Amino acid sequence: MKTDIEIAQHVEHTAMKPIDEIAATIDLTPDDLENYGKYKAKLTFDAIQKIKSKPQGKLVLVTSINPTPAGEGKSTVTIGLADALNRIGQKTVIALREPSLGPVMGMKGGATGGGNAQVIPMEDINLHFTGDMHALTTANDTLAALIDNHIQQGNELNIDPRRIQWKRVVDINDRALRQIVIGLGGPTSGMPRQDGFDITVASELMAILCLAEDIHDLKARIAKITVGYTYDRQPVTVGDLKVQGAIAMLLRDAIKPNLVQTLEGTPAFVHGGPFANIAHGCNSILATKMALGLGDVAITEAGFGADLGGEKFMDIASPAIGHTPNATVIVATIRALKYNGGVGVKDLTQENLAALEKGFVNLKKHIENMQRYHVPVVVAINAFSADTTAEIELLEKLCQDLGVTAVNTEVWANGGQGGEPLAKAVAKALQQPADFTPLYDRKDSVENKINAIVKTIYGGRNVEFSAKALRDLKLISANGWNNLAICMAKTQYSLTDDQHILGAPKDFTIHVREIVPKTGSGFLVVLTGNVLTMPGLPKKPAALNMDVDDNGVISGLF
Amino acid sequence: MKTDIEIAQHVEHTAMKPIDEIAATIDLTPDDLENYGKYKAKLTFDAIQKIKSKPQGKLVLVTSINPTPAGEGKSTVTIGLADALNRIGQKTVIALREPSLGPVMGMKGGATGGGNAQVIPMEDINLHFTGDMHALTTANDTLAALIDNHIQQGNELNIDPRRIQWKRVVDINDRALRQIVIGLGGPTSGMPRQDGFDITVASELMAILCLAEDIHDLKARIAKITVGYTYDRQPVTVGDLKVQGAIAMLLRDAIKPNLVQTLEGTPAFVHGGPFANIAHGCNSILATKMALGLGDVAITEAGFGADLGGEKFMDIASPAIGHTPNATVIVATIRALKYNGGVGVKDLTQENLAALEKGFVNLKKHIENMQRYHVPVVVAINAFSADTTAEIELLEKLCQDLGVTAVNTEVWANGGQGGEPLAKAVAKALQQPADFTPLYDRKDSVENKINAIVKTIYGGRNVEFSAKALRDLKLISANGWNNLAICMAKTQYSLTDDQHILGAPKDFTIHVREIVPKTGSGFLVVLTGNVLTMPGLPKKPAALNMDVDDNGVISGLF
Repeated sequence: MKTDIEIAQHVEHTAMKPIDEIAATIDLTPDDLENYGKYKAKLTFDAIQKIKSKPQGKLVLVTSINPTPAGEGKSTVTIGLADALNRIGQKTVIALREPSLGPVMGMKGGATGGGNAQVIPMEDINLHFTGDMHALTTANDTLAALIDNHIQQGNELNIDPRRIQWKRVVDINDRALRQIVIGLGGPTSGMPRQDGFDITVASELMAILCLAEDIHDLKARIAKITVGYTYDRQPVTVGDLKVQGAIAMLLRDAIKPNLVQTLEGTPAFVHGGPFANIAHGCNSILATKMALGLGDVAITEAGFGADLGGEKFMDIASPAIGHTPNATVIVATIRALKYNGGVGVKDLTQENLAALEKGFVNLKKHIENMQRYHVPVVVAINAFSADTTAEIELLEKLCQDLGVTAVNTEVWANGGQGGEPLAKAVAKALQQPADFTPLYDRKDSVENKINAIVKTIYGGRNVEFSAKALRDLKLISANGWNNLAICMAKTQYSLTDDQHILGAPKDFTIHVREIVPKTGSGFLVVLTGNVLTMPGLPKKPAALNMDVDDNGVISGLF
Repeated sequence: MKTDIEIAQHVEHTAMKPIDEIAATIDLTPDDLENYGKYKAKLTFDAIQKIKSKPQGKLVLVTSINPTPAGEGKSTVTIGLADALNRIGQKTVIALREPSLGPVMGMKGGATGGGNAQVIPMEDINLHFTGDMHALTTANDTLAALIDNHIQQGNELNIDPRRIQWKRVVDINDRALRQIVIGLGGPTSGMPRQDGFDITVASELMAILCLAEDIHDLKARIAKITVGYTYDRQPVTVGDLKVQGAIAMLLRDAIKPNLVQTLEGTPAFVHGGPFANIAHGCNSILATKMALGLGDVAITEAGFGADLGGEKFMDIASPAIGHTPNATVIVATIRALKYNGGVGVKDLTQENLAALEKGFVNLKKHIENMQRYHVPVVVAINAFSADTTAEIELLEKLCQDLGVTAVNTEVWANGGQGGEPLAKAVAKALQQPADFTPLYDRKDSVENKINAIVKTIYGGRNVEFSAKALRDLKLISANGWNNLAICMAKTQYSLTDDQHILGAPKDFTIHVREIVPKTGSGFLVVLTGNVLTMPGLPKKPAALNMDVDDNGVISGLF
């Protein structure tokens, strides 16, 4: 069996079209593009402006159950569904997140779909791509250096080094940088203080890049970032430091959406990549707007499960896009549901209807959650070879009982052709009325908004705020930040804040340990349980298998 | 008077040619290029191989006196000279270093030449360019994370956390990261240890990228990097960690030379950028080889003064290129020589023949040093408007007394036209025989090689090794690393290791505080005085003046 990279490289060598040709299929001219090699391009500012004013197509959001070690394949289904919609005559454009290099080198080895449903050139997209992540890392860390330099050079703004909120970032899983002490070595080497690195995708700049309308908005949001507090506990912003121009300058190209193609030539905007467990979890709103302006259907995905990425898409991204989903697809696998039903990873290839029915509760909860937004829901069963007919039929029936169509989807094995049944179901769903209803009113109190998410979406009983979180609430209130949106930071593996609790638990408590105001992106990051904003590498990192040969051909991405 | 960025933007909007057209002037086809937008390209591996086998042109090395706050303009002269040579009918191609973002945001504001002698698009080149620096930063820091992760996950190689030599890097002037403690926060967040960040251009990976012949050589050199030592004091290499493939993979595109153009359309390879004060200080040998293969004349520059970049070009880069310079140009300004003669910055616009003659000793020493390599020398007087005829004539005469032609050069004001007299002198020098003689034999002892540089090039009397440096010498000897080349790390402002001592001092001592074996790049970095491998930002960083407007137009680079 061919690996993902082998499938991708085969198509790259035989069938990949110059990006100008892909662009032409959605009425873009070479003048609309800034090429990065022959197969990648960014849109020019002129093109972005032009496309923004076009009539918009319909929006499909792809999300999933809670991820398990069994694998769900949300990106794979997103890509295959778009190929399939194009096959049945619906002009479809994809908007996806770009991979973070940290997990690529650590656990994942790649994040561009799989099998016969991938975006290409997969090596480029998984590694440096068009440099967006690097620009974000550099902009983030330049700001950090400017803050410490301000303190070093006299500290005119009276910044309290103990209350700096702005952390440095790298796009690497580097646990040793989580908690550090900087500024050692005497008076010429800075003010000693406790600090730490996050992964780049957790940076507020990433969120801002993904939410900004244009450079004007980008700069205004950057100026509003709270980097820390004075000794008098007053917020200090980037605007106070007067460096929003320099930081926005470093993101001038990163804000432009990137255009690539799927294995089957569907145009795909791959742009922006906040994680959904620690950030808001969807690609840039500009990329989604481009897909909406250029396609009759735009397909986008929300990171991890519907509890995290799905909720945030509805309550944070949708208002920013100015377009709510016309249909939602929830991806599940028979394997993952059996895993939720208590089956160990080794036994997942054996038929087990009881476990499937038991584990279905997880999918059921996510279906109900998405239905709560009054948007039509379709379930995609991402097919694995060990799935039995009885299992598939059972799952279809269980969904049917909730009034939802579940469709067996074979895009991994067969590309767009394997997604045609799903495409037809989605096309039908798009004919249904959607009557979007947000989960909470932003004017409500922070506690109430968090409670709405915990009780309605997670199914929990209550929220426990730590002493630190209670202090944070006071500070948020004192600064008039109550009206910001809520961005939960929670494990993706469970509806609770404990990654080991599967299924659809009830009567649990969510533990809020800290609330970080992100005044530039316009939300409060609510850190729950022990979710980390800097991952670590596993014992055998994917990097160990990666290589490049004398001709520049890469192996070991998968 | 127009600023550099205003001049550059004017040409970019009116006269900049698509990079394909520039490439065509040196017989490259679109298939030889990987475009990054319309005005930047990397060469493909096939093109690189093809060009390597072509007959080579002649090589001109541009270097300078010790830099002063008065400004010398080495890059400006390099670029203007190439434009001028093309004007007088010599097909000339440039090979230059790419700017490091740290100093751009800090003191410099830009490093792409000046006035009417610049490489463009200047904003792109000064900021993210084609991502080479970011790829290096990421590769360097991924390796660092893999080392700490190895220790965290059982430490099979028995690495001593107190003896890790591999530091993390950022391309930012961030003094607060010079000395840090990492791995705090308990057992899940790594092993606590003392660490520190260097600036990216000081990374051994930067040196390796600039010295590697091809991917095969790149990977072999990476495998040889010594990252630290075991508890038994045995070296641990990247090869021991088995991640040379992954690290080389991250540099697959970064190793390909970047092609841009000057304001006058001269092709310029801008690739690789080690600082000469802390690293080896010249662009990639691949870029120089491309310029040699595609031009009748290739012009390259060596960082800072002839004592640092010049010496390293002769003794480290030339053997790697397999081509020694056919002529050397030393750049000086009347202003800088008067500054060396004791005149303060404010008084430099007044004629002062006595100070000029007094400060000439600095230029004289550099002329003698370059003549020592038995390569013809030409002096370029980079003209400033306040220079008087009497001053220029005096400087010409002083050079003539040493048998060297000095040519007044007005490329800043007049571009290539202003460099024609210099171009003619250089063309004449290229007709003279060069009989390259290296400074030291690599088989000599480390102490003798350091002494040769200090006594012959710097003019010092002796070398004092610290206790740490003496221990380093023992370790180098015990590991059989005596035959490596020497890469001095020294202040660029003085021939001594004290930046405040100008002119051409004698009888001084050079203080070696540490010697770091760089077994991948094949040299020993000899740290002298208090030279820093991580700069800091000034009180008013250049970043404060930078901005990007709503249309993406950048200002504040200069």
